Amino acid sequence: MYDILGIGNAIVDVVAPAEHSFLSKHDMHPGSMTLIDADRAEALYAAMPPGAETSGGSAANTCAVAAALGSRVAFLGKVAGDQLGGVFRHDITAAGVHFPTAPLAEGAPTARCLILVTPDGQRTMNTFLGACVAFTEHDVDTALVGHATVTYLEGYLFDPPAAQAAFRRAAKAARAAQRQVALSLSDAFCVNRHRDAFRGLLPDVDILFANEAEVCALYEVNDFREAVDAARTDVSIAALTQSESGSVIVRGRETVRVRAAPAVLVDSTGAGDAYAAGFLAAYTRGRDLGVCGRLGSLAAAEVISHYGARPQADLREMADAVI
Amino acid sequence: MYDILGIGNAIVDVVAPAEHSFLSKHDMHPGSMTLIDADRAEALYAAMPPGAETSGGSAANTCAVAAALGSRVAFLGKVAGDQLGGVFRHDITAAGVHFPTAPLAEGAPTARCLILVTPDGQRTMNTFLGACVAFTEHDVDTALVGHATVTYLEGYLFDPPAAQAAFRRAAKAARAAQRQVALSLSDAFCVNRHRDAFRGLLPDVDILFANEAEVCALYEVNDFREAVDAARTDVSIAALTQSESGSVIVRGRETVRVRAAPAVLVDSTGAGDAYAAGFLAAYTRGRDLGVCGRLGSLAAAEVISHYGARPQADLREMADAVI
Repeated sequence: MYDILGIGNAIVDVVAPAEHSFLSKHDMHPGSMTLIDADRAEALYAAMPPGAETSGGSAANTCAVAAALGSRVAFLGKVAGDQLGGVFRHDITAAGVHFPTAPLAEGAPTARCLILVTPDGQRTMNTFLGACVAFTEHDVDTALVGHATVTYLEGYLFDPPAAQAAFRRAAKAARAAQRQVALSLSDAFCVNRHRDAFRGLLPDVDILFANEAEVCALYEVNDFREAVDAARTDVSIAALTQSESGSVIVRGRETVRVRAAPAVLVDSTGAGDAYAAGFLAAYTRGRDLGVCGRLGSLAAAEVISHYGARPQADLREMADAVI
Repeated sequence: MYDILGIGNAIVDVVAPAEHSFLSKHDMHPGSMTLIDADRAEALYAAMPPGAETSGGSAANTCAVAAALGSRVAFLGKVAGDQLGGVFRHDITAAGVHFPTAPLAEGAPTARCLILVTPDGQRTMNTFLGACVAFTEHDVDTALVGHATVTYLEGYLFDPPAAQAAFRRAAKAARAAQRQVALSLSDAFCVNRHRDAFRGLLPDVDILFANEAEVCALYEVNDFREAVDAARTDVSIAALTQSESGSVIVRGRETVRVRAAPAVLVDSTGAGDAYAAGFLAAYTRGRDLGVCGRLGSLAAAEVISHYGARPQADLREMADAVI
């Protein structure tokens, strides 16, 4: 049995500090995630400052944080059989996450995300999907889905075309096994790319994770409150984050507001992923929505206080204190 | 023209936090650098917590920090043509260091150093030399040596046997071109492995870098003051560090004491490398020994305040304020 099964793009992050002038010189939209091809990845990497390689990927980050918080976690995602694939596999396994997906034998290399962190702590991401495009529905073990309390799907998984089928297969298998499905909208631009598909999926989603920009993009509204009310009727639970203003969690007519935990922002990469991890770690242990949100806020605060999207501190004490 | 030409092992670090119990379980001597083979590297990596990959290597770190401080720097060292070799090449080039050594076409992979950082900030290193054993005297461009004010050699270069010849060739070429030679003793265990060779080299060394344990090991004495006095007669300048107690720089009968710069210790990896970088960045601009030591201390303080041995802050301001 697993508390959480995450499915997402298996990515190694290359994180480097940069000035805003670097972003504008290279036509990057600050704070966004842009998909890039192999040539652009090579050119951008050559122009980037020295970096640090750490395992990333949105759902994979959530899995690693949830495991650090004591949850039983598995992850599905595609790496290549190269050195960076080895790094990804090592890190997620060492975090305590079961990772059964076979590596891609030949073809594209392991995905990487070139992340520029500006002095304000904002991250701007450039993702070369590489081996992730070879993740298909055949990589979804429906028995494993049936053994997980929550199957957690990242919206970014809609970008590599074959993964959409995998996504749908996983959601369907979870429903069939009377398990729950959680969806993270990932990024407002991702929502714009796949709005209709996401809207079509909502009847199969129990828990929706999104930030303010993402949920507003989903419903094409400018007012966060409007988006919150729309989410109330579409999904059982919506956990909607607002950066330093904390989060709003709604379940039907119930509304829970949670403050952000204090943190010195160094690198915002993985903040939403960590929030979802804390939320689900508490949720799968049957805690109420306030506790879920509080653990989400604490986990996010840890992750944004240093470079990289995976925890650097021992999170067991944090979990024990809150749950 | 270059201010500094560094020659050393080209290594990618894999840095992870660990408890002291992990070190004892895996028979590691806290604070040491141990050479390991491919099998041990694989087994140890499998047992390690999730890590971050950052470029390392002692002389390479010194080169990267010196370049960040505004020096003109080149580096010689051997990587393989694999992904981690690409990471090393990117990082040192992006740091502004000229890196002309051709990668190893086939054979061993790029060297890596598995570094466990305990809660006291001490690093314990396990180095798999990989492609570094293929660095030979043919990789030493004597014309390049002749164009560098200081050729900086790391003691670790004595571990891969063929590199010793490269080391000697570089030192000889520097002398022939009336350039200066700097030697870092790297590690007390390394000194014990190669003491006679190091002692035999001292007549060709202008500037010796060592910490307290290393210089005591070199002269086989227990008293730091005895070691300092021995160094006075053996080399023109000795810059001898004592962690948080600062450093002692001697030139003949002249003695300069420099305080450590204030820092919150997170990871001591690269402290000595950064000290040497600051020292040489000031020295090659003709500054007096006190200024050299002060810039060394400041650079070391930056590097130990975060994980990884390469700078994360912009060091130009630091250099401008001191030099």
